[in-house]
Amino acid sequence: MSILNEFELFGNTNKAHDFIDSVKTKNFLFSFVISYTQTCEIPGITFAGADSDSIQYTPPADAEYLHYGHCKTISKIPMTPDGKPTPALLTKIALESASIPHLVINAGSKVSPQLPFIQTGLTFGKNISVESAMTDSQVVQAIDYGRIVGRSLASLTDCLIIGESIPGGTTTALAVLRGLGFNAKVSSSIPNNPVVLKNQIVNSALSRLDSDHPYQVVATVGDPMIAFVTGMLSSASEISKVILAGGTQMTAVLGFASKIGFNEDNTAIGTTSYITNDESANFKNLVSQIADIPAIAIDPGLKNSKYAGLKAFSEGFAKEGVGAGGSIIASMLKTGNTSTKFLDLAEKEYHRLFTSL
Amino acid sequence: MSILNEFELFGNTNKAHDFIDSVKTKNFLFSFVISYTQTCEIPGITFAGADSDSIQYTPPADAEYLHYGHCKTISKIPMTPDGKPTPALLTKIALESASIPHLVINAGSKVSPQLPFIQTGLTFGKNISVESAMTDSQVVQAIDYGRIVGRSLASLTDCLIIGESIPGGTTTALAVLRGLGFNAKVSSSIPNNPVVLKNQIVNSALSRLDSDHPYQVVATVGDPMIAFVTGMLSSASEISKVILAGGTQMTAVLGFASKIGFNEDNTAIGTTSYITNDESANFKNLVSQIADIPAIAIDPGLKNSKYAGLKAFSEGFAKEGVGAGGSIIASMLKTGNTSTKFLDLAEKEYHRLFTSL
Repeated sequence: MSILNEFELFGNTNKAHDFIDSVKTKNFLFSFVISYTQTCEIPGITFAGADSDSIQYTPPADAEYLHYGHCKTISKIPMTPDGKPTPALLTKIALESASIPHLVINAGSKVSPQLPFIQTGLTFGKNISVESAMTDSQVVQAIDYGRIVGRSLASLTDCLIIGESIPGGTTTALAVLRGLGFNAKVSSSIPNNPVVLKNQIVNSALSRLDSDHPYQVVATVGDPMIAFVTGMLSSASEISKVILAGGTQMTAVLGFASKIGFNEDNTAIGTTSYITNDESANFKNLVSQIADIPAIAIDPGLKNSKYAGLKAFSEGFAKEGVGAGGSIIASMLKTGNTSTKFLDLAEKEYHRLFTSL
Repeated sequence: MSILNEFELFGNTNKAHDFIDSVKTKNFLFSFVISYTQTCEIPGITFAGADSDSIQYTPPADAEYLHYGHCKTISKIPMTPDGKPTPALLTKIALESASIPHLVINAGSKVSPQLPFIQTGLTFGKNISVESAMTDSQVVQAIDYGRIVGRSLASLTDCLIIGESIPGGTTTALAVLRGLGFNAKVSSSIPNNPVVLKNQIVNSALSRLDSDHPYQVVATVGDPMIAFVTGMLSSASEISKVILAGGTQMTAVLGFASKIGFNEDNTAIGTTSYITNDESANFKNLVSQIADIPAIAIDPGLKNSKYAGLKAFSEGFAKEGVGAGGSIIASMLKTGNTSTKFLDLAEKEYHRLFTSL
């Protein structure tokens, strides 16, 4: 089928074909997990927001934009000062063009979105460069609540897509992966990936780690999203197919889940080619190190866009986030749409946003 | 089919047969809307809780019991001092025996449940005997958020069941029905229905009403549950089948929905025979007054129970609540179980609760 030509398959490619066959034309549900780590407040660590104060509003604003087409917590959609938009734009177009429903889950966001959402009561993670992200009991609570939500949502669909928004999350993901013993180099939302800074933070965090127990690793150097989504994956993958939609942050989830248990036969990771082609990271190798699961990458074709703001994604900006890659893959599997069609829809949305601002 | 013999059909009975045929063996989702009105603090108005201070904990405790099998907010499940349990017991058995998933929605509960739930940010309703329940903008917000949640949940199932827990809610329901011009006599959770007291409160509330505009009626004499669930019904019934699971409170929802619009062809009301047989109320007549929809009542057979606490439901205590009637109907439609089987399961759960306390 021609839609397969749109995807790059890696990890366990046999399983990737089986996974695609089993979910093609089926029902999908997109769950959008928003969270926060104070690690993002370290200057230079993220571009998820125009300035350091506005970073905390990015996750709820992404959720509001996905739902309403505009934000309520802030006046404009999250973007850089020069107009590069949030990857939520890609997710929104993907979900809407395929009538894929979505639910927002607050798993430690500093700010609640102004729409109905699933509340967990989890608190945000602390800055791992100076202190533990969470207490042990907070990690247990996050996993337990993740399991509850994963079980509920998986029972309502054939394939649960899980995306996330946690500014600074690639740094905590890198720390968790290394703490769990994986050889990880992570991607970033910034073209000139601040590798040196990230490694400093990660090394500082790992130096406080006195155990290789997975719960201890996540408590000391992780974030609430990683614990919560791991809980979701562990229960949901027993009930339905699951697409972990994201880049390096979802490999951290996969790494933690490989320690506490999940169903590999029902799980895939889905992301953009901007992640898999990132020379500063080792995404494909990392997935294979961690688990025997299929992985799928999509090139959304944004390099061909007439808008610089969309083209930027293909030039290393943002690359992924808000589950964009996995959402586009699910959207294409459900509708049979090509990346050419997707680019057309994304450009229309970009135009709408810039003329309505 | 024999399962039909378990039900009493009324309202539009032709539509009832069609409705049953269309959802039989399909997927159901139970949504449990918890809320609060200060009207319940008037002495003598409700039995939903052992004493007046504990009433506020009943909705979250019902939610916790449904999910965990025990409560977290309070130490025991909601019950009267002499051991008559919450109708959540019936709902729990119905949902579990048919593997029907459920989600909890906080639409104005004074206390949040200790589990993941859908958060709306709505505030509780005020005591309608002395002041307006809500502002106009709070009513609009409740309807809007109800519409959002109804749309999301209906897209995830073939049939959305909506149940509620709002202590004192039969009084606000009575006021809304009368304010909207329906001839209503409402049921109660107390065997000797405090008709005189309820009518005093309702008359006092209606005397402050200076408009028959439906939004004004709900703002002045209603509660957040009625506004929110009406919003849910209006959007959900465009997408899936909907069972309003409840007694008089759900007729108030139906009354308000009949003013703002909903799809009658996808909507049914489902309740227990303890409601339809209540001589102090006029449930069947009321449903027919309001809308051309099917209605289904189930006799769960609790009069045959060996436990006084279960038998009490058939003697006028509680009668309905937490969507028990609609849940039992959905459970039987999905599994083909009879009320005899249901009684057996309910007695096992009652025994478990009383030996584990």
